[in-house]
Formats: sequence, structure tokens, C-alpha cells
Amino acid sequence: MPSVLWILFDGGGDRPAGGKTPFHAAFKPTIDYLTANGSCGILDPIAPGVRPGSDTAHLALFGYDPFKYYTGRGAFEALGADVALKPGDVAFRTNLATVDENGVVIDRRAGRYIAPEEAKAVEDLMKKIGEEVGRKYGVEVVYKSTVEHRGVLVLRGAVSHRVSDTDPHKVGAKMARAEPLENSKEAALTAEVVNELSRRFTEAAAGLEINKARRLQGRLPINAILLRGGGYMPQIEPIRERYNIRAAAIAGVALIRGVARAVGMDVYTAKGLGGTKDDVFDEAVKLAVELMSRYDVVFLHVKGTDSTSHDGDFNGKVSVIERLDKALAPYLDALLKNYVVVTSDHATPVGVREHTGEPVPVMLYGPDVVVDDVAKFSELTCWRGALGRIRGIDIIPILGSYLGLSEKFGE
Amino acid sequence: MPSVLWILFDGGGDRPAGGKTPFHAAFKPTIDYLTANGSCGILDPIAPGVRPGSDTAHLALFGYDPFKYYTGRGAFEALGADVALKPGDVAFRTNLATVDENGVVIDRRAGRYIAPEEAKAVEDLMKKIGEEVGRKYGVEVVYKSTVEHRGVLVLRGAVSHRVSDTDPHKVGAKMARAEPLENSKEAALTAEVVNELSRRFTEAAAGLEINKARRLQGRLPINAILLRGGGYMPQIEPIRERYNIRAAAIAGVALIRGVARAVGMDVYTAKGLGGTKDDVFDEAVKLAVELMSRYDVVFLHVKGTDSTSHDGDFNGKVSVIERLDKALAPYLDALLKNYVVVTSDHATPVGVREHTGEPVPVMLYGPDVVVDDVAKFSELTCWRGALGRIRGIDIIPILGSYLGLSEKFGE
Repeated sequence: MPSVLWILFDGGGDRPAGGKTPFHAAFKPTIDYLTANGSCGILDPIAPGVRPGSDTAHLALFGYDPFKYYTGRGAFEALGADVALKPGDVAFRTNLATVDENGVVIDRRAGRYIAPEEAKAVEDLMKKIGEEVGRKYGVEVVYKSTVEHRGVLVLRGAVSHRVSDTDPHKVGAKMARAEPLENSKEAALTAEVVNELSRRFTEAAAGLEINKARRLQGRLPINAILLRGGGYMPQIEPIRERYNIRAAAIAGVALIRGVARAVGMDVYTAKGLGGTKDDVFDEAVKLAVELMSRYDVVFLHVKGTDSTSHDGDFNGKVSVIERLDKALAPYLDALLKNYVVVTSDHATPVGVREHTGEPVPVMLYGPDVVVDDVAKFSELTCWRGALGRIRGIDIIPILGSYLGLSEKFGE
Repeated sequence: MPSVLWILFDGGGDRPAGGKTPFHAAFKPTIDYLTANGSCGILDPIAPGVRPGSDTAHLALFGYDPFKYYTGRGAFEALGADVALKPGDVAFRTNLATVDENGVVIDRRAGRYIAPEEAKAVEDLMKKIGEEVGRKYGVEVVYKSTVEHRGVLVLRGAVSHRVSDTDPHKVGAKMARAEPLENSKEAALTAEVVNELSRRFTEAAAGLEINKARRLQGRLPINAILLRGGGYMPQIEPIRERYNIRAAAIAGVALIRGVARAVGMDVYTAKGLGGTKDDVFDEAVKLAVELMSRYDVVFLHVKGTDSTSHDGDFNGKVSVIERLDKALAPYLDALLKNYVVVTSDHATPVGVREHTGEPVPVMLYGPDVVVDDVAKFSELTCWRGALGRIRGIDIIPILGSYLGLSEKFGE
């Protein structure tokens, strides 16, 4: 029985900006060969014009309405970081950052590239502070670093996700105090815990050995932990039960791993797939093709197209697409007997450096699809294709039907 | 920062009827130049096949689901006529009409073209009757004429919008009695008030000087006031808050002005833009282009395409489109740096003379849109374009994304 390889270029969509887009410019003979023999269209990840986050977009792409299931980023980030969430737990996405002596944010990412041993030192410090503060307030505190400056903070106990972010979301602004967003004991307690953790981290960070070393190297200290996107884990019927699909996801980014795990996909990682712009994809593609014998849908997440877009790096974005395509080439014969989906979770135009709301190109190759005239996977061509304009939430049902796995609605 | 000029041809959509449509036949070089350099598609104002009213279509186009926000035409008509509605007020759309001695409707519009002094005489009479009837039932009665035979009646007090229309909606039928549509004291009272107002207006109309004059001129008397679309003002979050968009509307038609005002748009009028088929657009377009420096979206409503359609006047409809295009021409250079949307709120095929439910063409020009092959704005061409098939409610989010004004949903 055929299965599906689904390649997702995070933030891969772009704007023509008077010329070509990265998808259009990239030399990607394997994807374009599949495109020439497949069906194309444009895809609104959530709905026309809606600017998706990666989390809401992936929920939709996996077949779950984000307006119903999205409960804040923190919960998905924590799942992706292998922090098991219990009902009632509250999770925040965190950034390690640099603030000045007045608490004004100098860098929301403390220089972004944080070494694993630095992340470990922060985890150790947070463990100590978390135990002390947790004891004082009767809650359990779990902090975990994920990739670079990113991490998650989970609070367990009589807590609420209805508190405001401490992340001011911009440089030059003062780190904010968490405030309760509802009139409840839980929200008030959560805000207090968050503020005390934040204050004590900044106080203790000055004495960290890693910060002494960073100072000597002329690097910014890691002296603040910014929280945002407080959320709780929603009840989600697993994809296997909801859609009768056995699905695997290969991803290096905690948030995507978390969303995949939340919907019941088996989550894998691969050598070279760290979730950065320098990822190499050979091992990831090899693993994906292997997994196709055991799963109906294998989802491969490519983060580099988004990272390069946020950096405004057109050539870097092209290079990520070309590297993925090259890694795909050895498996073309095997793929031709199966289905392949190529799309993106949202546009991140290199000229904008932020997620935007236009549709992204989508391609579906497979033995039973209508072959249209589109021969190149790109924003400038796919709208001509046989798929028309579809939405993220349509993909899984479409695949379920081609694979013969979906239930008939009615008789 | 760029902004948007949005030109809406009311009832502009049409059917090919074996040949060209008015959009296809019209000589409109400026709109077609923008079309050739923009993105096209087809648009279901509400949903495929749904026959929209102008009010429900405009609600959707402005980004508000009419199934949620539409509470009867009267409320929007009243807003458009500068009658400030208070919570609990009930408003009806009214027609001045001609009935025979048995109350059978001879003309639902009393000849349609009603002079301002005639409308004024009707207002004076309604003021007198309204005060007497209002005192008797303990309600406040406000009547206001808008354009031609059109007007609004507002009842304030212990009233309900749940009463039936007195307008039989066709010639040759008897003017109906208002009946309560729910079992409440308010609905019963409202029906009584409406019926007494209607009866007394017809009784008093015989003695009106204007009707004596009309008789001498061989014109139909204004001797009935037909009520329909009883509604109340819904709670609507302003477009500025909901979509972060500063929006202005230029319109001559009370109903459209009312819908625009209801969603929080600033409403303007312009010389020549009375909302009839003879409108000239030079001042309106000039104002629109000026307003673009102060607003994110400037909406320009063109009524004549609908009026000519209801008259079955193909050439008249073409002429309205051509006049608008000619007024646009001097501003082409300025527009090229901005966004332009051209579409319609519904089809009113000249062969049908009523609103129909097929999609209308839509064009989006702008610096960042994908340019497709469509070079002429028309029902016969736009379906080939890069926008695919979208809905009225998608327009504002799409514009918000291109303008960089919309919030991201998720992280």
C-alpha cells in the first residue's frame, strides 16, 4: 500500500517582490519532477489572510482546527521538549535574554547562539531557584532548555495560564511583570511565582561562571528569562483515531515536535536536523523513506527556510530548499510509487522577515492524482494547478481518501 | 506605507447571457491596466450560491459574518440616514408607495423619483402622526426620508423587531398588516403601532398638497408607507479594533453608509455621488485618493451598476463602469504605489433584474501580489487568476496581511 512523504518548508512561502521567490529561484529538480507529474494549488494554512504562527498552522495542517485546539504556545513547546504535561499544568515558552541594570531588554535572545554547556548551566540554576520558589508557593517548577535561546517553563499545582507575558516582545522595553488576566487565586499565585522566578534568575545570573566567560569574550550575558504564551494542554483525539492514519513526524524544532506529539504522531529526530538554517537533510530523508514502510504519513519538517527568512537571507533560503531537494534525489524511484506532498506552513517573505497571511504553494504527487500543467513548485505557478485553493485542514482528509483510510460520511 | 483603494460596483456582477457582461463590454483602461498587473479571482460575497442583499454582502466584505451580525435591514438603513439608534430601538426600512382604494399596491415606489420637497412633506406628516400615535402607545416614533422613495422608521420604547413586514413585496397584492412574530407584549404593541401609523398615513395622504399636484401632473400619489426588515442594532466590535485597520467609506446610499458606520468606518460623501445611476465620480475619486494618506483602506461605493441592473439597462450599466474608470485615470500613477481592490457585492444580472447568487469577479493590485495572466476585469476572465475562489469575509484579512497590520495567530 502506498504511503505519503510530506515535506514542509517552514516559512517557505514568499512574495515575488518584483522578481522571483526562493521556491521559484531554487534549483530543485526532484521536487519539480514530482510537481510536473502531480497536482498543484495554493493553500491557506488557516484561512485566507490569516497570519499563522507555526503552532496554529501545524495544528491545522495535521487536521485540527486551531480556533478550537490552540491553547497557547507554551503547552506545545513543552511537549516538544519532552516535558510530559499533566492536566492542569501551565507551560510557558521562554527566551534566555540580556537586560541592562534597569531591566531593559538589550537582546531578546542573548545573542541567539547559546552553547549546550551554557544552556545546561542555566538549567541547573533554574532547578535550584525553582525548588526554592516552588517550596515557598507550593508549586512544582520545571525548566528545560530546548534549542539555542529557547526553553520552556512548566508550573504544576494550583496555577492558571491566565497571566500576561513577561517578554515585552521588543528590544529597548523593560521586561514586564506578569499580571493575572483573570480574577482567580490561581492566576494571582501564578503571576507571583513567575515574577519571583524571573527576579531571582536575573539576580543570580551575575554570578554564573558562563557569564564571566561570556564577558571575557565580549559576548552579552544571559541574565534574564522572558516568558510568553502561557498555555495548558488541550484534549486532542489522536490522529490515528480521528483520521485512521498512522503518522510520524521528523522534526528538530521543539514547537513542531510538540504539536506533532499533541496530535498523536510518533516523533523522530535525525542527525543533521537540529532545526537551524545549517541543517543537512540526508539522514532525515533516509529515515523518512524508511518510516514510510511503517506509517501512512511521514511528515518531514524543514526549519531553515523560516530562519533564513527571518534573517532576510534570500540566498540562504534558496540554499535550504536546494539542500533538501538534493537529499531527496536518491529516493525518487521509491517515491514515484507513493504520494508526496510539498508545502509550507506560512509565508515568511525575506523582504518582510515576519509571517504573513498569503497562501503558500502546495503540490500533491501520487499515482491517482490529476496531473496538471504546473511543472515548477512556486508561488508564481502553483495557483494554475488542479488543486485550486484549499486550506491547511483539508490536507489530512485528502490524503486519507487517496490512501483509502478514511471513513465514509453517510451511506 | 501603502494603503488600499477599494472600488465596489454594487450589483456589478452579471451573467454572460450568451454574450458579454457589462464588465467585459465596458471600456475601462485604468481598471484593466491594474488587472493586468495584479491578481484576479472570483468572490462569493457570502457563500457559494447565496443571494446576498447589499447589507449582508457589505457586512461580509467589511469582515463581519452576516449570519452572526445581521439583525434586519432597518437598523443599517437608519444608521445610514444619520438616525442614531439606541439599544432596544427597532428600525424598519420604508418605501413610499401607491395603493388603490382597497389597499392593493399599484407601485411599491410611487413612481420611484420623488422630489426632495415631496419627501419633506411626507416627513412633516409622519412627524405629526408619529407624535399622536406615539403618545397613545407610549413610544417614540422617528421617520426619515433618505433617497427617492426610501426611508426609515424607528420606534423607541417597549418595542420588538419581531413583527412581520407590511410591505407585500409585490405589486397587485394588498398591503399587509404587521403581525407579532413572537408571543410578547412588545411585539404585540409594535404591530399595533405600525398598523395604526400605516392606516393614518394613508388616510391623511389624500389631503396632502403634493398629492394634489401629482394628480394634476398625472403622477401616482404617495399614499402608503410600506415597512420591511425590522431590526435592531447589533453589538459590533469596530474594524479598527477587530482588524487594526483605519477604514473610510465614501457612499451616497443610506444603507451602505449605515453598514460602514456600524462597523466603525468613517463615512464620507462627495459631490456627484448621490447613489443613483446618474452619479458622476470625479469628486468621489479625488476624495478617495486624498483619504488614502489618512486611512489604511478607503472604500468607494458605486451604486449605479445596481440601479441600472434593476432597470434591465445593459448600456446604462456599462456607462456607470466607464464613468468610474475615467474618473480613476488621472490617479493611476499614485495608485500604482498602493493597493487597489475592485469587486462587487453581488451579481444583479440585467437579464434577471434581481440579486443572484453567483460569484463576482475580484481583482487585487499591489506591490507584493502575484501577477497572473488576467488582463481584463470581467466575469469571463477573472476565474483564471491567481486568487482562486475566495469569500467576501476574506478580503479584509488579506488586506491586513499585505499592509502588515494584522496580528499573528499563534507563535
